[in-house]
Amino acid sequence: VAKSMLAAVIDRPHQIAVREVPIPELQPDEALVRVEAAGVCGTDVHIFDGGFLASYPIIAGHEFAGTIVALGPEVTGYQVGDRVACEPSISCDHCYFCRRNLHNHCENWQSLGVTRPGAFAEYVAVPRQCLYRIERLSFAEAAFVEPLACVVFGQERARLQLGDNVLIFGAGAIGLQHLQLIRRAGAAQVAVVDKRSDRLELASTLGADWAIVADGTESQKLRDIAPRGFKLVIDATGVSAVVEQAVQYVMNSGKLLVFGVCPQAERISVSPFEIYRRDLQIVGSFAIRRTFSQAVSLLEAGAIEVKPLIGQTITLSELPEALALMARGQAPMKIQVCNQG
Amino acid sequence: VAKSMLAAVIDRPHQIAVREVPIPELQPDEALVRVEAAGVCGTDVHIFDGGFLASYPIIAGHEFAGTIVALGPEVTGYQVGDRVACEPSISCDHCYFCRRNLHNHCENWQSLGVTRPGAFAEYVAVPRQCLYRIERLSFAEAAFVEPLACVVFGQERARLQLGDNVLIFGAGAIGLQHLQLIRRAGAAQVAVVDKRSDRLELASTLGADWAIVADGTESQKLRDIAPRGFKLVIDATGVSAVVEQAVQYVMNSGKLLVFGVCPQAERISVSPFEIYRRDLQIVGSFAIRRTFSQAVSLLEAGAIEVKPLIGQTITLSELPEALALMARGQAPMKIQVCNQG
Amino acid sequence: VAKSMLAAVIDRPHQIAVREVPIPELQPDEALVRVEAAGVCGTDVHIFDGGFLASYPIIAGHEFAGTIVALGPEVTGYQVGDRVACEPSISCDHCYFCRRNLHNHCENWQSLGVTRPGAFAEYVAVPRQCLYRIERLSFAEAAFVEPLACVVFGQERARLQLGDNVLIFGAGAIGLQHLQLIRRAGAAQVAVVDKRSDRLELASTLGADWAIVADGTESQKLRDIAPRGFKLVIDATGVSAVVEQAVQYVMNSGKLLVFGVCPQAERISVSPFEIYRRDLQIVGSFAIRRTFSQAVSLLEAGAIEVKPLIGQTITLSELPEALALMARGQAPMKIQVCNQG
Amino acid sequence: VAKSMLAAVIDRPHQIAVREVPIPELQPDEALVRVEAAGVCGTDVHIFDGGFLASYPIIAGHEFAGTIVALGPEVTGYQVGDRVACEPSISCDHCYFCRRNLHNHCENWQSLGVTRPGAFAEYVAVPRQCLYRIERLSFAEAAFVEPLACVVFGQERARLQLGDNVLIFGAGAIGLQHLQLIRRAGAAQVAVVDKRSDRLELASTLGADWAIVADGTESQKLRDIAPRGFKLVIDATGVSAVVEQAVQYVMNSGKLLVFGVCPQAERISVSPFEIYRRDLQIVGSFAIRRTFSQAVSLLEAGAIEVKPLIGQTITLSELPEALALMARGQAPMKIQVCNQG
Repeated sequence: VAKSMLAAVIDRPHQIAVREVPIPELQPDEALVRVEAAGVCGTDVHIFDGGFLASYPIIAGHEFAGTIVALGPEVTGYQVGDRVACEPSISCDHCYFCRRNLHNHCENWQSLGVTRPGAFAEYVAVPRQCLYRIERLSFAEAAFVEPLACVVFGQERARLQLGDNVLIFGAGAIGLQHLQLIRRAGAAQVAVVDKRSDRLELASTLGADWAIVADGTESQKLRDIAPRGFKLVIDATGVSAVVEQAVQYVMNSGKLLVFGVCPQAERISVSPFEIYRRDLQIVGSFAIRRTFSQAVSLLEAGAIEVKPLIGQTITLSELPEALALMARGQAPMKIQVCNQG
Repeated sequence: VAKSMLAAVIDRPHQIAVREVPIPELQPDEALVRVEAAGVCGTDVHIFDGGFLASYPIIAGHEFAGTIVALGPEVTGYQVGDRVACEPSISCDHCYFCRRNLHNHCENWQSLGVTRPGAFAEYVAVPRQCLYRIERLSFAEAAFVEPLACVVFGQERARLQLGDNVLIFGAGAIGLQHLQLIRRAGAAQVAVVDKRSDRLELASTLGADWAIVADGTESQKLRDIAPRGFKLVIDATGVSAVVEQAVQYVMNSGKLLVFGVCPQAERISVSPFEIYRRDLQIVGSFAIRRTFSQAVSLLEAGAIEVKPLIGQTITLSELPEALALMARGQAPMKIQVCNQG
Repeated sequence: VAKSMLAAVIDRPHQIAVREVPIPELQPDEALVRVEAAGVCGTDVHIFDGGFLASYPIIAGHEFAGTIVALGPEVTGYQVGDRVACEPSISCDHCYFCRRNLHNHCENWQSLGVTRPGAFAEYVAVPRQCLYRIERLSFAEAAFVEPLACVVFGQERARLQLGDNVLIFGAGAIGLQHLQLIRRAGAAQVAVVDKRSDRLELASTLGADWAIVADGTESQKLRDIAPRGFKLVIDATGVSAVVEQAVQYVMNSGKLLVFGVCPQAERISVSPFEIYRRDLQIVGSFAIRRTFSQAVSLLEAGAIEVKPLIGQTITLSELPEALALMARGQAPMKIQVCNQG
Repeated sequence: VAKSMLAAVIDRPHQIAVREVPIPELQPDEALVRVEAAGVCGTDVHIFDGGFLASYPIIAGHEFAGTIVALGPEVTGYQVGDRVACEPSISCDHCYFCRRNLHNHCENWQSLGVTRPGAFAEYVAVPRQCLYRIERLSFAEAAFVEPLACVVFGQERARLQLGDNVLIFGAGAIGLQHLQLIRRAGAAQVAVVDKRSDRLELASTLGADWAIVADGTESQKLRDIAPRGFKLVIDATGVSAVVEQAVQYVMNSGKLLVFGVCPQAERISVSPFEIYRRDLQIVGSFAIRRTFSQAVSLLEAGAIEVKPLIGQTITLSELPEALALMARGQAPMKIQVCNQG
């Protein structure tokens, strides 16, 4: 292994440069992982914009898979050459929340790509607790374990009964993972709403029973499909106005899963009488809570197809441009940085 | 049994008269119950005001217990003289919702005291499915089975883990039932907030670990008590502004139970980002869903003390005045109409 | 409608005759349903043998779908000509268990085909609460709603987490419904064990990741596949020795679902220390508990393929022979009696 | 702090000596805790007998509380002088089971008092993840956090509905913790069965609705009390014959919690037909799974009284005799070793 590597360093908000930096030194319980594929996430854009809790300078990138090239002395059970998907979050396991199995609210939370050097680089130092060996998965697929683990957590929280019907707002990479997983999590029929017809076509291919354009007529269509509403409605848009409208489509005694990331300052209006009278549940879902291994199992088993969700594959040097494109809302589905060496 | 009885008839909104009416005729699967105790509920005030889904003229009263004085031929398992608490709701058991065990959303829902003659009368015709024999309970206590069954349903929906801490807004008859039950449902410590110090004293007597006056300083006190918030926050006020403020006291990954009945037209403002980021659950709870027998068991076992919740005992002829008092918000804790003959 | 119909009447155990009987008279809340397809179940064999709680003479048959040809005056929401699947169980909705939503333990339980005339006839009188309209389903498919509803109930009781691995013993009609449903209920990978290779081939076609012959080598194969065991093991054989052996394949903190119907007098041996030390759960599942509509939704949505499970289609007059074949254990997969008129 | 301390060392099975040994050296993430109170558990007897997975020589003792007297450099959030209850189990947080929140099945499990030096000594080295600060609790009470955390886990696994009735076999220290907690976990009424009338008197004092002597007539009494059985039956005896008999008292759709530790080699006989037909659940519960903080909260809140459960307080030098007494089954309720210096 060389001493230096290429990395995309965000020195401060809005300033990113791809340059040579030292290869990370390993702690005794860490492995050095050569990044083979790393997905670009909306959170990376927020870090680039300065709108997230990152510490600068930072190498972003938290959805990734790669090959182990070196091992600290305390890392047992893994070998150089092992192919791994990596959980970015590092929880302390001794704070108030970790002790109650609420690791996603760890009070000493760290994350590769947010508070520690991440995957938009040739190598990452990854603690043993974050390594998950992969078998049949390609690296490009394995880079989806992280977002899928978020989706798994959301669906565990909003657990439906076998045979329920479901409505998903948003047919981006996240919405289409929700679509596929919810069909494996007991849903009978699933409707997907989005503005873009190309995404809706993909939704149909991936199992949507109804793929509905959000063109102003969707409300009537949804009433026709499900006069009593849907047992579960998932927001995968992060658009506050969509979340506010979504409540009306929840069946009595049903649930609304607030999964998309709305702007921090925005608020929506809800009727407490309606929540009471209709027994509604509004359920938030943040990141991953011990669902990474579940996502590995589901992907390895082929339960979810992620290849169709890859919109573009780029090199590290193309990342700055891709982030800018995403910031302007012009990006294709999921963009992945791949090691093409 | 005589042919006529005294009843408080609401002929149309805002017009109530206590007068002689025919004793109800029984269907084959109904029992005639002499009302011994009947609680007056906020819903009765709404029916009096015209603000609920009642059909007029109506004899209100849906929280009651009494003695069986006659039986239809299909009612087996009960005898004249049996002391019973009565569930007011009658679900059809064959509609979309009943088939899914969501009886409180029955599409053919009927209710004694709302759509059928209720308990503010000397006698009520009660379908077999609504009869629950009582043993150790007095009639005055048994008239609390109905509201307690609502509280049981709310707490089943917002199920906490053993040892959680809880915050309750509102120390009226409902809030104090929530307080007592949540201590039997696994809570370690419970805080209660109300404006009235006499109610807070009762809350302390009934087990509240903290009884806090809502005088503008409660926010700081709650932060001191529970810096990370409460795992479960229950609104038992029905005041929209209280519900809106309550969200901030919910711990990450905790729940807000919207139990009080807010005015239909009011809305509150919530942050979808906060719901997402803090994994919040906002949970509504409407009426009773097959929890009546649970409430009977808990009351019979002495798990909940309801006698201290009785603010005043009146006769049927005093009911019109009591409703007016409640409409003006000047009523004491629970008012009960009791058969004193 | 004529006055008489053909029916297979079991006059007493081991004596069955196909003969003309009066068409059932309707109660006001019943519909007359012309049977179009009726599955033959192991329970029918038990009734024929005298080993079940039937009242003789009885027309058996409780898995069926048909066409409404007449309606009692209280049956609203249905029309002559409607195609329906029929739930056989009739619960009272007012006994101890029904009041607690445990309808499958109703103390006044009745069942079409067990205690009341069933579907091995041209017509059946079906209470309104048992009617479920079907849409896209054929009658042959709709006759699978009843067994699937049992499978749904079992899987709701043994609810797994998304991504769990599952082992099923038995690849008969029930085992193959479990296989398909568990893949829609969150399982990542599923192993199926059976003695018959033709059934295992079908299991593979229907989604089994491993289809393993029970030839004495299965134990080692299961250890290789899942060294820590399976999170859920389902017995769909009803063979006591299989249930006893199945415990060892359950992962620590996993579940064994006892779904197959073992002989009443048989007992198995288990280690209470092992249950404690390995956090095992052994879970029974009896019949249907308000899961019929879920099964309708899942079948309508195409979540489960049942056509491949039909081993033979017969006429009513061939039923006695088919029962005898099943009693000798020589039957093919599911046998259906179909109206070919 | 001195260099040596008094400890009860089990050098090999059946050989124990109280002697001077070196005070443990601290790892950077460990605190040195002076033991103030340590409960003696059946597991300690098994370690003494050689029947558990201990590594010899071993200082046993895993139920304890004490005072921090020294801190490793990585232990933040604690100070010398802090009073703490200590969780004995140390899970790795990166093995198959820990990653799925099943820490009690950790594949790299360690435990103070089993695989590492425990609390039958003047001092113990305790990893940071095992420290829980106590406030109102005395040390003698805090030494009950560990067994109570086991009880909490059992009751979380066998979660009942509000108002269920419960039967507990065994009124020893564990049975009486179950009794008290289940009344705070939603039970309406609780029956307790034991052979010893003194224990039953204590059970009545602590809230048992029925305290029944196991003298051969208990079966009829239990039938009289609960003709349909109990929704939850808990074995707290560890006697296989009791577990086998307990199944019959479980209500249809109810649960049997196998909590007591039966001898490893013993087996019981159960009917798989009965499990199926009556929808039974048999649930094991092993040790603690992230329930230590729940137990701290419940004890601090006074939800459970543990002082009446202390049968005898001894010094370290009296421990060998006490273990011998327990091995012969002649011990009083809980024995605690207390620092009386």
